[in-house]
Amino acid sequence: MDYLTESLKKHLEWQGKIEVISRVPVKTKDDLSLAYTPGVAKPCLMIKEDPEMSYALTRRKNTVAIITDGTAVLGLGDIGPEAAMPVMEGKAVLFKELANVDAIPLCIRSNEIDEIVNCVKLLAGSFGGINLEDISAPRCFTIERKLKAALDIPVFHDDQHGTAIVVLAAVMNALKLTGKEKNKITTVINGAGAAGIATARLLKDYGIENIILCDRQGAIYKSRENLNSEKELIAEVTNPFMRKGSLSEVIKGTDLFIGVSAPDCVTKSMVESMNKDPILFPLSNPIPEIMPDLAKDGGAVIVGTGRSDFPNQINNALAFPGVFKGALAANATDINEKMKIAAAEAIAGFVKDNDLKPDYIVPSPLEREVSLHIAEAVKKAAHESGAVRKV
Amino acid sequence: MDYLTESLKKHLEWQGKIEVISRVPVKTKDDLSLAYTPGVAKPCLMIKEDPEMSYALTRRKNTVAIITDGTAVLGLGDIGPEAAMPVMEGKAVLFKELANVDAIPLCIRSNEIDEIVNCVKLLAGSFGGINLEDISAPRCFTIERKLKAALDIPVFHDDQHGTAIVVLAAVMNALKLTGKEKNKITTVINGAGAAGIATARLLKDYGIENIILCDRQGAIYKSRENLNSEKELIAEVTNPFMRKGSLSEVIKGTDLFIGVSAPDCVTKSMVESMNKDPILFPLSNPIPEIMPDLAKDGGAVIVGTGRSDFPNQINNALAFPGVFKGALAANATDINEKMKIAAAEAIAGFVKDNDLKPDYIVPSPLEREVSLHIAEAVKKAAHESGAVRKV
Repeated sequence: MDYLTESLKKHLEWQGKIEVISRVPVKTKDDLSLAYTPGVAKPCLMIKEDPEMSYALTRRKNTVAIITDGTAVLGLGDIGPEAAMPVMEGKAVLFKELANVDAIPLCIRSNEIDEIVNCVKLLAGSFGGINLEDISAPRCFTIERKLKAALDIPVFHDDQHGTAIVVLAAVMNALKLTGKEKNKITTVINGAGAAGIATARLLKDYGIENIILCDRQGAIYKSRENLNSEKELIAEVTNPFMRKGSLSEVIKGTDLFIGVSAPDCVTKSMVESMNKDPILFPLSNPIPEIMPDLAKDGGAVIVGTGRSDFPNQINNALAFPGVFKGALAANATDINEKMKIAAAEAIAGFVKDNDLKPDYIVPSPLEREVSLHIAEAVKKAAHESGAVRKV
Repeated sequence: MDYLTESLKKHLEWQGKIEVISRVPVKTKDDLSLAYTPGVAKPCLMIKEDPEMSYALTRRKNTVAIITDGTAVLGLGDIGPEAAMPVMEGKAVLFKELANVDAIPLCIRSNEIDEIVNCVKLLAGSFGGINLEDISAPRCFTIERKLKAALDIPVFHDDQHGTAIVVLAAVMNALKLTGKEKNKITTVINGAGAAGIATARLLKDYGIENIILCDRQGAIYKSRENLNSEKELIAEVTNPFMRKGSLSEVIKGTDLFIGVSAPDCVTKSMVESMNKDPILFPLSNPIPEIMPDLAKDGGAVIVGTGRSDFPNQINNALAFPGVFKGALAANATDINEKMKIAAAEAIAGFVKDNDLKPDYIVPSPLEREVSLHIAEAVKKAAHESGAVRKV
């Protein structure tokens, strides 16, 4: 199928992929008096007394804002807020269909960090959580950090953490299959934007110690020139042996390659230069860093990509619906590292040992039970890590 | 029924009165590829080329933001954004149930005019229209004026214009029934907040010349002391004979009383002091300026209130769903005076001559066809007055 042409046709037909509906009847005068005036005065006053009641008396507890400025949409770059909306509506569709979470896409007409932060802060009382989306790096890091500090509801930049969680889940099962150990492998991540940096951080938190992050100039190490502040921060905790050089140099002798960079930047001989039984997740979309067949020719035993037409699709959609569902269910104030690792474990654990094989290391996002499974794990981790509101 | 207690019970049971649903299937990989990546890239790029396409390819054309800061909610005053949400959700329910418009309530954590204006401006690309709600006067006037100047989508403060439209509709039919003429009657409006000032303005635009607006200090006239800037503006175009004095003084010899003020401030003897066959719309809620029975004892021939348990309920819900539906259908850039008068005429005209009687001058908001009728009229007026986007 020619997805692009067909999708345009469908979008013209759909005229919007989401819709706001009423959950209450409005047929009689009594209906009106209960859902609206005069009855509604009572729930209003209850919330005025105790703002926490907004979670019990409105849809807030099940509602997430999807926030973008349209600066880093898919592979399309800075296309602006209006043009970003079809993606955000798609995201809202997945929130609803995969986890029954209500999501409201809001595309902001500004590229100014503080203007975006302030706008979201002003709206936070209407939502149970904030999903940041497709905001360009390194601005996305600052925006998320400022919002996390300012708000007592979960703030989650999906391009960072959604990707990181699903990659970690895939890594967990790949290690299981290959018998490699997390504290003994060497990992190289190509691409030091939102996804690359967040993935490095989460893998590190999980106990994968030796990670080399590369940008276009090659390996990132402490004191290298031309590092933005985010890369400086990540250089502090990665690349412990201060490896230097291009990707083709530093990939030698590694066990795990994760690409969140550009098409076709990994060659067969680079795969051949890796350790025995290498694992590759070339996630550039739609054209991966290396095609799965070629990677396997070079010796790869497990390959996962971002595409739905190859095995092992590493797709954010696997994580964010369940992660938010769990955070909302827990009355979480944050989505912290423990909750993210719990989500990854839930995704990895969803593949039963009997089913686990090189071509099936993660479930499909279309398997409806995954998000419930994740939600349970995230909720538990929120409670255990104390990231919950007192209610 | 004890609406307050029962409403609280219902709200606890409902856990939110609205919900965001998907309009597209997500069962197969193809579904995902069409509604989300990779297919969605195409509609995104179409909108990037031509932002007008956002109306055809997303839900924008049917979606309105309900914006409040929670400073003037119902009769409850400044209860804050979270506590305002039950009312805003109720409003969204009415938008959907009465006119199939998708409405998204956003409660803003700020009382600062410029902060609210800027927040709404930043979000405008995600919506087809902006419904301002329950923002205190005189701030509401400034906020609306600034947003109307800045945005090319309709901005409509419902407490002002929704009330004004329904009052005008009721006045049209009351004049018809009593044989009074719009350019000969004298009108007194008690209450010079959002609703009072907007009603005076719309009645004036309709051709009701002699209007005396009162605040707590009595009649408003040019050069009176203690006028805020909005009252100064309205004093320019009302009270042509410079009547002075308290409500009980200036109500003498008038034909039409409209109350948007406080309970029980009109007495039977005040009604007796009006012209023959007076019309009274005491709209203070839940306790009107004068109870209908008492007004009739004083000689009133037509009485309308804000309450659903008396005849002739003058209720915003009669106007806003259809007004926005019409504006959206027209690709309107504004909701102007001509569109508002057209809406009032549509509401008045909905009551057939045979049915028109003192106790039935406006339809019930629950009559589903009203909003379609209004929408048609508003759409037509938008085109005739040139307040539409070129498409």
